[in-house]
Amino acid sequence: MTETLATTDVYSQVQHFYAHQMQALDGLRFEDYAATFTEDGTFQHSPGAEPARTRPGIVKELVEFHKRFDGDPVQRRHWFTHIALTPRADGSLASTVYALVVTVRPGGKPEIAPSCVVHDVLEVSDGQVLTRSRLVTHDQMF
Amino acid sequence: MTETLATTDVYSQVQHFYAHQMQALDGLRFEDYAATFTEDGTFQHSPGAEPARTRPGIVKELVEFHKRFDGDPVQRRHWFTHIALTPRADGSLASTVYALVVTVRPGGKPEIAPSCVVHDVLEVSDGQVLTRSRLVTHDQMF
Amino acid sequence: MTETLATTDVYSQVQHFYAHQMQALDGLRFEDYAATFTEDGTFQHSPGAEPARTRPGIVKELVEFHKRFDGDPVQRRHWFTHIALTPRADGSLASTVYALVVTVRPGGKPEIAPSCVVHDVLEVSDGQVLTRSRLVTHDQMF
Repeated sequence: MTETLATTDVYSQVQHFYAHQMQALDGLRFEDYAATFTEDGTFQHSPGAEPARTRPGIVKELVEFHKRFDGDPVQRRHWFTHIALTPRADGSLASTVYALVVTVRPGGKPEIAPSCVVHDVLEVSDGQVLTRSRLVTHDQMF
Repeated sequence: MTETLATTDVYSQVQHFYAHQMQALDGLRFEDYAATFTEDGTFQHSPGAEPARTRPGIVKELVEFHKRFDGDPVQRRHWFTHIALTPRADGSLASTVYALVVTVRPGGKPEIAPSCVVHDVLEVSDGQVLTRSRLVTHDQMF
Repeated sequence: MTETLATTDVYSQVQHFYAHQMQALDGLRFEDYAATFTEDGTFQHSPGAEPARTRPGIVKELVEFHKRFDGDPVQRRHWFTHIALTPRADGSLASTVYALVVTVRPGGKPEIAPSCVVHDVLEVSDGQVLTRSRLVTHDQMF
């Protein structure tokens, strides 16, 4: 019973963590997004890319990536579903999540692409969740 | 521990509340939808609109809004993701949620638009959730 | 309080159950998918279809269904939102869920169709969730 409770407790925490994390990213609050990673966290937004490392490194990578949207009044939204957690031997959690990127421009309709899978390793302690590593794979590239 | 438990408990309650609330709306059960608001609840489906007030006022607004679908065999589905809750000083919760409207007609493919953000104030007590106010912003209008 | 706790606990369990179940389906792990049904479980993927019965019957149905994708490098993702649970007299749960099928091919953009509603009866005991029956209705066919 204690075991079950702990598990479902953690599941809600992870869902809520992702909600705040991804609203930070889509709101261009890159410092807040980077703070959801561990100090030595890594963020790899596609399999071919070099992973960004550490919180300052993640902020730098996001600033660089978003230069493509300079002068482009775009609103992006990262949708998540089906967060599947699997315990790892070291006490962390493997988290595999479906993601769709929704892109909207003023007066336009949302473009919904690409379809991705987020592969995270999460650290959970005392009700706090942090991302230790993130690799994003893209369905159209398989 | 009690604090964490309460929080994750509330998070699940809010998710489940939204599931029933939005299935009521999409099922055109407007009385059921209005009953998910507080007695003095307000519902503003876009920033420029005058908010509907009280449960009877919300029902009236929904009946009025749906007249555009008279004779149109449409099925709408409101999708939600990333429910982010923030406690407010008065004990209520600010809830910020991504929403996509899926629209289907017989024989057709779903149109997925617009992309919105739902800004709610929620009251939670004894496991019951009610919406005190709702403002919906639209991404294509920013 | 115990009642509320049990309910929210079950809600998280059901969400997590669906995450693993649908990732098994989309990963073409049909044995794993069938194992998420009760021994005598039924799976009806559209109202006109004959339901598949028992785990071996469900595997057989999925193998048959997926022959249409032979030689087609397709990745499908079943998205879920708004899981609404209602207790049934026998202790099982009626679960009504919105579903969208996302289909991606290499180099392409995701096609997002059809929009469906999943009607499940779930059995939950000791933290384990199983699907007793599943009927999927399609919005474009109403």
